[in-house]
Amino acid sequence: MNTQTMKSYVIGLDLGGTNSVFGVVDSRGDIKATTAIKTQGFDNVEDYVDASVEALQIIIDQVGGIDKIKAMGIGAPNGNFYKGTIEHAPNIVWGKGIVPLAEMFSKRLNNIPVALTNDANAAAIGEKIYGVARGMKNFIVITLGTGVGSGIVVNDQLVYGSDGFAGELGHVIMRRENGRKCGCGRTGCLETYCSATGVARTAREMLQTTDEPSLLREIKAEDITSLSVSLAAEKGDKLALKIYKFTGDMLGEACADFAAFSSPEAFIFFGGLTKAGDLIMKPIKESYEKHVMSTFKGKAQFLVSGLDGSSAAILGASAVGWDIQ
Amino acid sequence: MNTQTMKSYVIGLDLGGTNSVFGVVDSRGDIKATTAIKTQGFDNVEDYVDASVEALQIIIDQVGGIDKIKAMGIGAPNGNFYKGTIEHAPNIVWGKGIVPLAEMFSKRLNNIPVALTNDANAAAIGEKIYGVARGMKNFIVITLGTGVGSGIVVNDQLVYGSDGFAGELGHVIMRRENGRKCGCGRTGCLETYCSATGVARTAREMLQTTDEPSLLREIKAEDITSLSVSLAAEKGDKLALKIYKFTGDMLGEACADFAAFSSPEAFIFFGGLTKAGDLIMKPIKESYEKHVMSTFKGKAQFLVSGLDGSSAAILGASAVGWDIQ
Repeated sequence: MNTQTMKSYVIGLDLGGTNSVFGVVDSRGDIKATTAIKTQGFDNVEDYVDASVEALQIIIDQVGGIDKIKAMGIGAPNGNFYKGTIEHAPNIVWGKGIVPLAEMFSKRLNNIPVALTNDANAAAIGEKIYGVARGMKNFIVITLGTGVGSGIVVNDQLVYGSDGFAGELGHVIMRRENGRKCGCGRTGCLETYCSATGVARTAREMLQTTDEPSLLREIKAEDITSLSVSLAAEKGDKLALKIYKFTGDMLGEACADFAAFSSPEAFIFFGGLTKAGDLIMKPIKESYEKHVMSTFKGKAQFLVSGLDGSSAAILGASAVGWDIQ
Repeated sequence: MNTQTMKSYVIGLDLGGTNSVFGVVDSRGDIKATTAIKTQGFDNVEDYVDASVEALQIIIDQVGGIDKIKAMGIGAPNGNFYKGTIEHAPNIVWGKGIVPLAEMFSKRLNNIPVALTNDANAAAIGEKIYGVARGMKNFIVITLGTGVGSGIVVNDQLVYGSDGFAGELGHVIMRRENGRKCGCGRTGCLETYCSATGVARTAREMLQTTDEPSLLREIKAEDITSLSVSLAAEKGDKLALKIYKFTGDMLGEACADFAAFSSPEAFIFFGGLTKAGDLIMKPIKESYEKHVMSTFKGKAQFLVSGLDGSSAAILGASAVGWDIQ
């Protein structure tokens, strides 16, 4: 193969509820060019793909044209890897029903292979290809954002399950009685406690049920966010530290159950909450070692994502492209 | 390859705490010959292997000698698939420490490949090769015996995890407060409620905490077993039916969490408790559909093992032999 036709790049698309960010990425994870459009503001998916391809054309040309592009990877909410579809995405106007997005992009991009999965799975493939999971065959990525997501790798392969939707560890039940109400319609899900919004809920609960002094009392209850907790914790606020301890304890307990499932070499945490560093990672690890079955004690590593925050989602999506067999 | 050298059989060894049962099995799951020795009564593993090979020689000769044997599969407690070892088996005198059983058998059997895993994993491979999971790429086998075991298949492969010990779903925590004490040293494990012994515990608890009339009241509390419950249920005993309902409800709740992990095509139940048929299977399925995330509702099948009870363990072990790559 001569250099003229060498396919040295993939396109990554991080499809979020607000923005759609595209990047052209090389095999080392260097982002060569990026562009973006608004995700919303299109009545139908055809118009969305039209606008995407128009924006993409410019960054594709920057690396030498479509012949240099091996594949495209998409990280999207409600993404079905097997079918390349977005299914019933609640927050995207043109995403109702079953949208064959991968096929539509492929047709418009010289029939390059296009794969699509949810963002947590994309993050897991990103860790495997560019991040801290390089060389690992069994690991679990847990994304701590607005929700709690997960990407599970077993025997060196992403776990998609029978329907393409496996790996929803944010929705295992951690409290079977008096659990918090979850957006999924059930109660007690891990996500209701350990997402950014869950952390804010914990803060409000602790402020209400204790008399402990805290910087957080200076903020109106409804305005408290996980960022407020983080800022208070940085100043040594004891209640804020307790909130991290509570969150980490529960994540460690959950991971102890996940170990019984796939005994991963590492749990890798991704997202805003990990910025708290040891304040969150230490309780996770301690709680895990306390709760896990003796068979698994002392074996798993607890790591923070190796992908750079601002470009992590693009890298994850592009990794899905590299991962196409 | 001429028929003289065609390797048409595998050896299966079901290594239990009391008996070690050997079978020579063909690719359709027909057991051509069996033999057995006591598992205990040997001071060291060398003597156990000597006695095994002596017994095996006779059934190997019955099918035409060792040249007809492709491989050997072993289902054993605390079996590590990656290393072919039994590790710290608490109930086997010669099984303390780390015993390289697969290698020892291979050396004594003309260097045929020998693979070893725990009995629940062996059961899962058995279902895949001879049973109700033929053609399935994602399923979970749950064994309901003295304990609760599991074998998980993802992407057509058994999940062994980073250390060879994955798939311990009997030890996910179902009650985080006031849970029953488990043999693993922790509390609230699924096994403490849904194993045969768990069912007997539930019976004793319900007899003590309610005034409900029941045939089980005619039995001394300490003599109640899961068989007592089964016999009472067959006679329509209402309390016995409640015990099955309680057990099935919890298994369904547990499976709902497992779906969030690997979204299997089917959950396959194996072991004595499944003889109760719909009395246990119906509550499991109903509870699952009630508790599972909406994404997964109505997708998974709930099946009873397709392996014949008396020979299931041998078939499972032999399947591990066929499954060697």
